[in-house]
Amino acid sequence: MNIVEGVLNHNRLALAKAITAVENEYDNAVEIMTALYPHTGNAYVIGITGPPGAGKSTLTDKLAKEFRKRGKTVGIIAVDPTSPFSGGAILGDRIRMLDLSSDEGIFVRSMATRGSLGGLSQKAGDAVKLMDAFGFDIIIIETVGVGQSEVDIVKTADTTMVVVIPGMGDDIQAIKAGILEIGDLFTINKADREGTDKLNIEIEMMLELNPEHVSWRPPINRTIASKGEGIEAVVDSIEDHQKYLTESGEIVKIRKARIKNEVTAMLNDKVNRYIDKNVVATDEFDALVEKLQARDIEPYSVVNDIVGKVLK
Amino acid sequence: MNIVEGVLNHNRLALAKAITAVENEYDNAVEIMTALYPHTGNAYVIGITGPPGAGKSTLTDKLAKEFRKRGKTVGIIAVDPTSPFSGGAILGDRIRMLDLSSDEGIFVRSMATRGSLGGLSQKAGDAVKLMDAFGFDIIIIETVGVGQSEVDIVKTADTTMVVVIPGMGDDIQAIKAGILEIGDLFTINKADREGTDKLNIEIEMMLELNPEHVSWRPPINRTIASKGEGIEAVVDSIEDHQKYLTESGEIVKIRKARIKNEVTAMLNDKVNRYIDKNVVATDEFDALVEKLQARDIEPYSVVNDIVGKVLK
Repeated sequence: MNIVEGVLNHNRLALAKAITAVENEYDNAVEIMTALYPHTGNAYVIGITGPPGAGKSTLTDKLAKEFRKRGKTVGIIAVDPTSPFSGGAILGDRIRMLDLSSDEGIFVRSMATRGSLGGLSQKAGDAVKLMDAFGFDIIIIETVGVGQSEVDIVKTADTTMVVVIPGMGDDIQAIKAGILEIGDLFTINKADREGTDKLNIEIEMMLELNPEHVSWRPPINRTIASKGEGIEAVVDSIEDHQKYLTESGEIVKIRKARIKNEVTAMLNDKVNRYIDKNVVATDEFDALVEKLQARDIEPYSVVNDIVGKVLK
Repeated sequence: MNIVEGVLNHNRLALAKAITAVENEYDNAVEIMTALYPHTGNAYVIGITGPPGAGKSTLTDKLAKEFRKRGKTVGIIAVDPTSPFSGGAILGDRIRMLDLSSDEGIFVRSMATRGSLGGLSQKAGDAVKLMDAFGFDIIIIETVGVGQSEVDIVKTADTTMVVVIPGMGDDIQAIKAGILEIGDLFTINKADREGTDKLNIEIEMMLELNPEHVSWRPPINRTIASKGEGIEAVVDSIEDHQKYLTESGEIVKIRKARIKNEVTAMLNDKVNRYIDKNVVATDEFDALVEKLQARDIEPYSVVNDIVGKVLK
């Protein structure tokens, strides 16, 4: 099967293979991406993030179903933290998403955080492009928003939604705070829990302090995703934001920034791999490390010397 | 005040200034690090990580006091997640650590995750070296182990301790699993909670599956850090691990790997900054991004072209 043609002809198996090629860096990955790039740029990309346990997967599931009701096809990329021990993504999430898989208008893919998250961020971006080229109207990319790198994955979406829940500890609050500034909309999930009003006020107050939200005021919705409550209002808010971005012309700026970020990440990645292969993996470098360990030399001039040799 | 001389003469203010210089990338930062590098390599470095809410700060505090009882001086670097909204590290942690500050044999420094964690990892490594040059016997570096980048910070320590607590949700368990493989020792904190035995068995089972732990079997200790219970046994385990590393010669390999990682990170960082300044920030690059946005060109050959121009 020709994967590129398959993706363009809405063949789901081809899409799955293309994402696998990108994820595992198969030899044909760049070729596939190069051929499909001209067919991208049509999907609307939604990033969903929030702390562990916020119910993001359930919410994503329900949002996808609501988009389907509104006539949109939906691709979902779930970026999961994994363990080298357990060797896989969070099983619960995968099972939850299975009940979507009978619908031809929905495609779900988990991507696991093997090794460097930096690399994953790029691969997730490529998966978005593949789903875009396939023709999905909406692409939802969902991550646990706990580390900076994971936040990087979603923050280049057209609309970024931050999911929070009431009643988490102080430590969690702090992490949550770290991702609050990237939210175009907020959803308080598990909103039947105690502390919902307090959390709502806290978010309102944080938004007050943020001077960036002048023309778009992030709405705060409440859901009980497990019961399907409040889902329509969230999709309404996403569509409002899409309308705002389109009418204000902001969408062009956002997408330009996304491309800029992506190409910069590709550049850094390629150069870093070059250094790994041609500098770090050499016997000469090993000898330098041993001299450093003996404190015969110091690393700052070593780095300057190498950079001088590597760069034009 | 000459900062370098100050640090070498155990002047705490000089140490604080040196870390600030590194953290904020002041002009004198490289000069300070270069001058002090020959005086590093004597401290024993302990990394402490674990999920949010595991009580790492309290545990670190108690461990530091126990090391003091055993005649060791202790430097602590607490890497905190921060919010651009709140603008600071987790206040609770800082307050908790304040009661250590009356002891001249202890030095506590918080470093906040402003922007890129990659950069922070390097800065935290530099702070370790500064405390090392100052002359602390033990340096504890503590982070919330939720993102890959944060794990990177602690995993190059001589001894890495993973702190877990019973009774967290599945989502948290998965993140915890992601950091389990880096533990030289495990501490179940809040061990008066229900689920402690179950968690202990789970960790044991995960360790069984890991073929790496042949010569060193990571011990699992139990603490109630808030009450000071179980602390001595943890310090005993740390000292056991230090003894094992020293006698087996593993310590030399670990420290060589740490230097190699550090220099590689410095190289990547320097080259990426070069690219940011000389490629990404140019009008030419901006024009390329606009062509990419119009899908007139594709990014893979653009990246190859630029890399060809940048590298020798």
